Amino acid sequence: MIMDDKNRVYIFDTTLRDGEQVPGCQLTTKEKIEIARELEALGVDVIEAGFPISSPGDFQSVVAISQAVSAPVICALTRANRKDIEVAAEALKQAKRPRIHTGIGSSDMHIKYKFNSTREQILERAVDAVQYARKFVDDVEFYAEDAGRADDAYLAQMVEAVIAAGATVVNIPDTNGYCLPEQYGAKIKYLKDHVPNVEQAILSVHCHNDLGLATANAIAGLKNGARQAECTINGIGERAGNTSLEEVAMVLRTHQATLGLTTGIDPKKFYAISGMVSDMMRMPVQPNKAIVGRNAFSHSSGIHQDGVLKHRENYEIINPEDVGLASNSIILTARSGRHALRHHLLRLGYDVQKIDMDEVYERFLMMADEKKEIGDEELRSLVSGKPARA
Amino acid sequence: MIMDDKNRVYIFDTTLRDGEQVPGCQLTTKEKIEIARELEALGVDVIEAGFPISSPGDFQSVVAISQAVSAPVICALTRANRKDIEVAAEALKQAKRPRIHTGIGSSDMHIKYKFNSTREQILERAVDAVQYARKFVDDVEFYAEDAGRADDAYLAQMVEAVIAAGATVVNIPDTNGYCLPEQYGAKIKYLKDHVPNVEQAILSVHCHNDLGLATANAIAGLKNGARQAECTINGIGERAGNTSLEEVAMVLRTHQATLGLTTGIDPKKFYAISGMVSDMMRMPVQPNKAIVGRNAFSHSSGIHQDGVLKHRENYEIINPEDVGLASNSIILTARSGRHALRHHLLRLGYDVQKIDMDEVYERFLMMADEKKEIGDEELRSLVSGKPARA
Repeated sequence: MIMDDKNRVYIFDTTLRDGEQVPGCQLTTKEKIEIARELEALGVDVIEAGFPISSPGDFQSVVAISQAVSAPVICALTRANRKDIEVAAEALKQAKRPRIHTGIGSSDMHIKYKFNSTREQILERAVDAVQYARKFVDDVEFYAEDAGRADDAYLAQMVEAVIAAGATVVNIPDTNGYCLPEQYGAKIKYLKDHVPNVEQAILSVHCHNDLGLATANAIAGLKNGARQAECTINGIGERAGNTSLEEVAMVLRTHQATLGLTTGIDPKKFYAISGMVSDMMRMPVQPNKAIVGRNAFSHSSGIHQDGVLKHRENYEIINPEDVGLASNSIILTARSGRHALRHHLLRLGYDVQKIDMDEVYERFLMMADEKKEIGDEELRSLVSGKPARA
Repeated sequence: MIMDDKNRVYIFDTTLRDGEQVPGCQLTTKEKIEIARELEALGVDVIEAGFPISSPGDFQSVVAISQAVSAPVICALTRANRKDIEVAAEALKQAKRPRIHTGIGSSDMHIKYKFNSTREQILERAVDAVQYARKFVDDVEFYAEDAGRADDAYLAQMVEAVIAAGATVVNIPDTNGYCLPEQYGAKIKYLKDHVPNVEQAILSVHCHNDLGLATANAIAGLKNGARQAECTINGIGERAGNTSLEEVAMVLRTHQATLGLTTGIDPKKFYAISGMVSDMMRMPVQPNKAIVGRNAFSHSSGIHQDGVLKHRENYEIINPEDVGLASNSIILTARSGRHALRHHLLRLGYDVQKIDMDEVYERFLMMADEKKEIGDEELRSLVSGKPARA
């Protein structure tokens, strides 16, 4: 990883790993290659391509993506054991810039109830896994699973040990989407302040959206010194999903003056890649999804439509064209005002000077109370007084 | 409003106003009454029932909801002008606890480009609107539109003036979903610190999700002294939507020990009301939606399933039953929506992608009209097209 620019945030996409493991989302290798190529064009820094030991299909996909994509780092997931690491290394053989992502639970709950182990034994396994992975690749990321609920002092000890063992990136996952932003930010700050060798690695944020806070938590981590963000397109992933890549990138871009952080992402590709991932994974994007939802830039109330027509920035903080959407859509409904109606009549070529707007607007409201949306055909019928064609 | 308990957060639901104004979401008055009754059962403190002057249908809905629902405050939206306020007061006549919600833009951008006015003139109009609304009702909420981008000192002046004019609640909307959580929290803190009469009213948070930060922003406002949160079911609303009611309520509940705030919401009703709103408004909830998405509590990776089977809390911070998701808590009757039907088909292991839901739902409704409840055996027969065993 380049670490020259201290304000550069690396975007680690895990759509093909944490996203793809969701029920109903499984992709063929061919589909994964298509998405990986789009992620490369989008400008992500790292593609997590799969969990090679989990199935022959996952192994094959990591091999194929390693061949197909050259700019981003290609990353493969493992647990903290030698067999997983060997299989991941094998799958990554043809990657130009391979990374092994290994790790183990760091919260007392995971240590006790998942591993039936002790803090000391878990620390040893963590160090051993990183050292072993470094025998195969130069770039090793360690994940401290359930770090969101881990004891900070123990977590700091673990982070220090794995960096000493050769980890280049350390991932601090809020695996269960539990943290409040200030808690997650404070955890990253604690590590920056208490781990002596922390500058030798990049800290990474990996948040889940169980309470609807994934984006805010990721930003809080970056504000406090993390420089890699693990995300997925459309925020898909286990349970309520991961941090949305498009949300994190647009927060950093919209608030660049305040946060001072940059990414290599080209937001103009968001709308297209969002649709591609949604279609291939059969995971609908809700209309009110931030950035990429169908309605994300539609203004429907009369007050808002009027405001946008007067001055776009009255109600838009992002230009829809910046995220690949041709133009904002002003949809006519029962909440629309005269200004929006006039806008559409002008667009359809009517000379509004010659139209009795009071009368047309009254008929428009009656029609709009019955129908959901008023399209061009209905508008023409309103003006002419003749019914719309069936 | 009761203001005795300083840690009580009032939940103001605007599903039927800010949510309903979205393209394709329009409801009949009958449907609005059904949702209002469910909101009352959910325990919301305020229902924003509509914007009476905007259309005859909206006016009629506010009248009907005022008659149908008695526990929550019924609120009607207006702009800062006398005609809007008179019409709202008329629509609210039968409400047991009526509230008029009036307001005007507070950012320089809105003042200049939307109203072509000055700070002084806008302040006068704000005060006049509140005073006029108080002639009709005792409970008047003022919204300082686009407060997220307003100058803090001017905003404080406006808040002070409208409280002096009789506002009982002052809404500080981040109309464009622009703020970072720390910025929005700081704005509320500024008002608490700089408005001399601020304790005579409740400050309200109204956030939009354009950058995916609505829930975090609402929580930041509540942490800093706001005591009303404006939300919608499923986070629906203009553009990328409003703050999700279910997310705010579950953040406050999950982090009660840290935040020390309570609501009157019964989370066990979330899953059912989410499905009802989604069905009636034809606004799908994405599977990875926090709290109410189909996958919000499904563990798919082997690692996670294994961890959950060992100890549920390894990967769950919320018990699904706490939000109404238990196989026996959702009973299928003729009143059930597609969401509930889908839930049960998934529970029984069907791949709903491969099922013609329109056709199955139609047969379901015919069967449910004959029987009181539809059990698993009947469901299987519905899908297969073969009769259930006797």
